[in-house]
Amino acid sequence: MPTPRRHFPPRRPAGPRLRRRGLAIGIDIGGTKVAAGVVDAEGHILREARRATPGSQPREVERVIVELVDELSSDYRISSVGIGAAGWMDLEGGTVLFSPHLAWRNEPLRDNLERLLRRRVLLTNDADAAAWAEWRFGAGRGEPRLVCITLGTGIGGAMVLGGRLERGRYGVAGEFGHQIIMPGGHRCECGNRGCWEQYASGNALGREARELARANSPVAQELIKAVEGDIEAITGAVVTELARDGDPTSRELLEDVGEWLGLGLANLAAALDPGTFVVGGGLCDAGELLLDPARRAFARNLTGRGFRPAARIERAALGPRAGLIGAADLSRVNRVAGWGR
Amino acid sequence: MPTPRRHFPPRRPAGPRLRRRGLAIGIDIGGTKVAAGVVDAEGHILREARRATPGSQPREVERVIVELVDELSSDYRISSVGIGAAGWMDLEGGTVLFSPHLAWRNEPLRDNLERLLRRRVLLTNDADAAAWAEWRFGAGRGEPRLVCITLGTGIGGAMVLGGRLERGRYGVAGEFGHQIIMPGGHRCECGNRGCWEQYASGNALGREARELARANSPVAQELIKAVEGDIEAITGAVVTELARDGDPTSRELLEDVGEWLGLGLANLAAALDPGTFVVGGGLCDAGELLLDPARRAFARNLTGRGFRPAARIERAALGPRAGLIGAADLSRVNRVAGWGR
Repeated sequence: MPTPRRHFPPRRPAGPRLRRRGLAIGIDIGGTKVAAGVVDAEGHILREARRATPGSQPREVERVIVELVDELSSDYRISSVGIGAAGWMDLEGGTVLFSPHLAWRNEPLRDNLERLLRRRVLLTNDADAAAWAEWRFGAGRGEPRLVCITLGTGIGGAMVLGGRLERGRYGVAGEFGHQIIMPGGHRCECGNRGCWEQYASGNALGREARELARANSPVAQELIKAVEGDIEAITGAVVTELARDGDPTSRELLEDVGEWLGLGLANLAAALDPGTFVVGGGLCDAGELLLDPARRAFARNLTGRGFRPAARIERAALGPRAGLIGAADLSRVNRVAGWGR
Repeated sequence: MPTPRRHFPPRRPAGPRLRRRGLAIGIDIGGTKVAAGVVDAEGHILREARRATPGSQPREVERVIVELVDELSSDYRISSVGIGAAGWMDLEGGTVLFSPHLAWRNEPLRDNLERLLRRRVLLTNDADAAAWAEWRFGAGRGEPRLVCITLGTGIGGAMVLGGRLERGRYGVAGEFGHQIIMPGGHRCECGNRGCWEQYASGNALGREARELARANSPVAQELIKAVEGDIEAITGAVVTELARDGDPTSRELLEDVGEWLGLGLANLAAALDPGTFVVGGGLCDAGELLLDPARRAFARNLTGRGFRPAARIERAALGPRAGLIGAADLSRVNRVAGWGR
């Protein structure tokens, strides 16, 4: 049951036309920094601010959020605040079930913040926020069945189906990175083995490159040189940079990761049949060096190929601010499947 | 664009309350038989009829459909006809994209039949029809996020999300059986290797049992005896019967298949987070001998276990008539995501 509302308009889902007026603040809580911005109804960021992530203690995070909102709202009339963070939020957007960066557990974070901020607050998963932004303003605009993938250290995922975020029965849908595609394969931090994100993420790219370097393969010399012999310093970003500079080994490593990406996308297409996949996240800095092999592997592994239209695979358009933009917009329009039902 | 309507009411989606009145005929076109029935608004079958499947030629199948509808509608006032068949129908329920039992390809089958029958006709995938029936009248009643799996020779799948069948962008969602869970694994008739249905279906059970029998393993003697030495005659159904009679080897084989089933369901839960899985199809005759190991493997492989509510795994309630009942009901209420938008 919702708690009684106070000094701000009641939370209810937007009508068939999304509410178009008003500014919102979006806040993206990451592992190292908290980014915030004033976002208008067309998805433009009017002003930005950021802080270092203050640790995961509820009071500290609340304090930073309040500071950021105070700073950003001095010159703007803000109707609502959307907060995106890695982890699982409940379906209503009120409490944190689990998050690596937020120590709230089943506490009414939204209500706490609404009391402090005297504004409508929405709490959402960062991948959901990014997907919403891409659907509203980015590479997924107009797509009735959109699946978004964020390739960072792991794989984030979200779906916008029929103009609503589909978050599942308990709000934890979209964990595509934890589909097991190699039983008995690499250990995943989720506790399983063989999860997709162990094969198609920035972490996977770094791990493969380090393994190659440790084997002291002659083809790994550019990699080893780039980190002056400190093999543990080889990350996905290092490989991506070398690949863009033309290093054939780094390109092969990206190709391997791209193939796993395409295979996992084919699995998602079998289940979900989206019209478009939007692929974002840091690993996408590799651009076509990643997406071209992914598209080929997707086409090769799509079940029913030749008898069905195939989904497009597009690079995300909004970059690292997608989460902030999406959180702000969601707080305004509130279109999540399940809400308001 | 829809073609102009004729002597029957216009097709439009039901309002928030499903239309409750009227009888519909459901027709399930299978590989060997065509089953039809008059279905009321509570999902009860009032009368049934069936014919042998007449081959896949459009005119022959049309003739059988017309015969069945004529026979069944003599004593009942029928408002609509729903037809379920294996394969892919377009999103509007008007044409067959691909079907093993129907040779129509991009022809307006629905319009042909509406002309012949002078009734509203809906064409749908058999797994979608069965899922809809289980959601409306069976083991999935009241579930806001339902995923259905039909275990037969392969794996059929469908989703009912927020009271609508979710069929994807092009109408071919739900092919869960073709998620690749073992790259380089068993060849699948879809053209790939390692699809889930090669590990968790009636066919998979039969193949594993035949392999064991061919190896002439001492543990396979009951299996070999049951088919009087004709190893090729060992099917999933044979194994299931022996398992129910207590044969330890057949139980082990079912357990293996159940474990693959649970692992694939855990993958679907990661992506879709349903509240309930309903599992039906012939292989479910094995009951708990299959579902108990499936539930254990699901619990063991669910990503985020311990931090999230887990979906229930339930056996389908409506049996082999689910497809017929669902096709009839869908033709009446027409609640498919995408339709009417």
